[in-house]
Amino acid sequence: MSDVKTVTAAMIVIGDEILSGRTKDKNIGYIADHCTAIGIRLSEVRVVSDDRDEIVHAVNALRRKHDYVFTTGGIGPTHDDITAESIAAAFSVPIDINDEAKALLVPFWENRGFEVTEARLRMTRIPQGATLIANSVSIAPGFMIENVIVMAGIPKVMHVMLDAVTPKLRTGVKLQSQTLKVTHAEGDVAVPLSKAQDRFPDVSMGSYPFVSEQGFGTQLVLRSTDQDQLEKAMAALLDLLDAEGIEATRVEV
Amino acid sequence: MSDVKTVTAAMIVIGDEILSGRTKDKNIGYIADHCTAIGIRLSEVRVVSDDRDEIVHAVNALRRKHDYVFTTGGIGPTHDDITAESIAAAFSVPIDINDEAKALLVPFWENRGFEVTEARLRMTRIPQGATLIANSVSIAPGFMIENVIVMAGIPKVMHVMLDAVTPKLRTGVKLQSQTLKVTHAEGDVAVPLSKAQDRFPDVSMGSYPFVSEQGFGTQLVLRSTDQDQLEKAMAALLDLLDAEGIEATRVEV
Repeated sequence: MSDVKTVTAAMIVIGDEILSGRTKDKNIGYIADHCTAIGIRLSEVRVVSDDRDEIVHAVNALRRKHDYVFTTGGIGPTHDDITAESIAAAFSVPIDINDEAKALLVPFWENRGFEVTEARLRMTRIPQGATLIANSVSIAPGFMIENVIVMAGIPKVMHVMLDAVTPKLRTGVKLQSQTLKVTHAEGDVAVPLSKAQDRFPDVSMGSYPFVSEQGFGTQLVLRSTDQDQLEKAMAALLDLLDAEGIEATRVEV
Repeated sequence: MSDVKTVTAAMIVIGDEILSGRTKDKNIGYIADHCTAIGIRLSEVRVVSDDRDEIVHAVNALRRKHDYVFTTGGIGPTHDDITAESIAAAFSVPIDINDEAKALLVPFWENRGFEVTEARLRMTRIPQGATLIANSVSIAPGFMIENVIVMAGIPKVMHVMLDAVTPKLRTGVKLQSQTLKVTHAEGDVAVPLSKAQDRFPDVSMGSYPFVSEQGFGTQLVLRSTDQDQLEKAMAALLDLLDAEGIEATRVEV
């Protein structure tokens, strides 16, 4: 949880297929980028299996700790899709067929000649008290219950759900960042970086080594919600690097 | 934790840059594939920030619950690399410069004309009682302390560390899998899949929808450590699909 200015979120990726390696998650990076862009700080992520107790435990641990919890995966029509009922269990609320979801889906299925089976109707089961999140790709909605946002695992579907829910979210100050690139190994910049960090404790400073054809290099990333502090910290770091004879170039990322 | 036949692991991805979206994690999928291939079941993953308390909490929660815990990230030379000291804190052991690590790194640095700075020497600090994990790419070692395996975040470096530590790991029975592809939406296969699941409760059955140029399709994945049960479950599922007039083709993945 957080003060008025900072809004935090956690994310839960649900699915055995991620843990077995069969499917490579692409949603963590997408939600991380989205949160950063709108002024929500993604603070932790968990990947859990298709196991009700594991899902309930993760949801209850994280929804009390953060302003929002995003989940992806497990809201399809088959027996292994247990996210909706696990979320209901986490909130101790009943789950049943939701009339609004049914009114969206039945005409969609009928138009496509899909039979309205009991299995398909599983996708209209929504925990009591939740509001639907529109899905313009495949119609079956996500939902939001209190501060927990339940979305599909298929990236294209998750993206439209995230867009649909975003206007409803409280956001905080945006994290600004500036990046420097140096053609030196990380060990060469550690001291000036550490000195800059000591002078500007509220600016988060990270160092990310890379190897290129020119040899070892490092990107230095400064992050702050305060643009003025960020500029001052960057100027100080450039001076400290210069004093060591290390040339640095600003990078747009 | 687990019986003799099943070996479980958790993974902790450490780094603000993953949570901000700046860096897209590629290690979860790699470690998931590797674990599946060698007979370790990756059971959960957490992504945490560069925060000592968060790291300690995650390490202590997971190392008691699983046979192994893999960590990636935060073992470089800069002030934001706090994984080694956080692991030492989690185990309540001291951390200091490790002679073996120093003997590996100092000649390597000297050969490349790198100064042996205090910052670089940070990479030789290893918690007491840990054994080193070789790094043939950039030499600075990872380490293993009890059941926790601490590796670099840079994928190329993590890969060689994982290869180096793998012969030391106890592995269990391998999970076998078989995949079917059907050109039907998930809702059409839910009933036969669910019936097959009821008959073979020990075979895990997952359903993964996709959209192709031919329309909706679904992959059905059956997983078991018992090859005989897997074959029987697959035969039963093929019969159940056939009874519904659904054609299925086996897929090699």
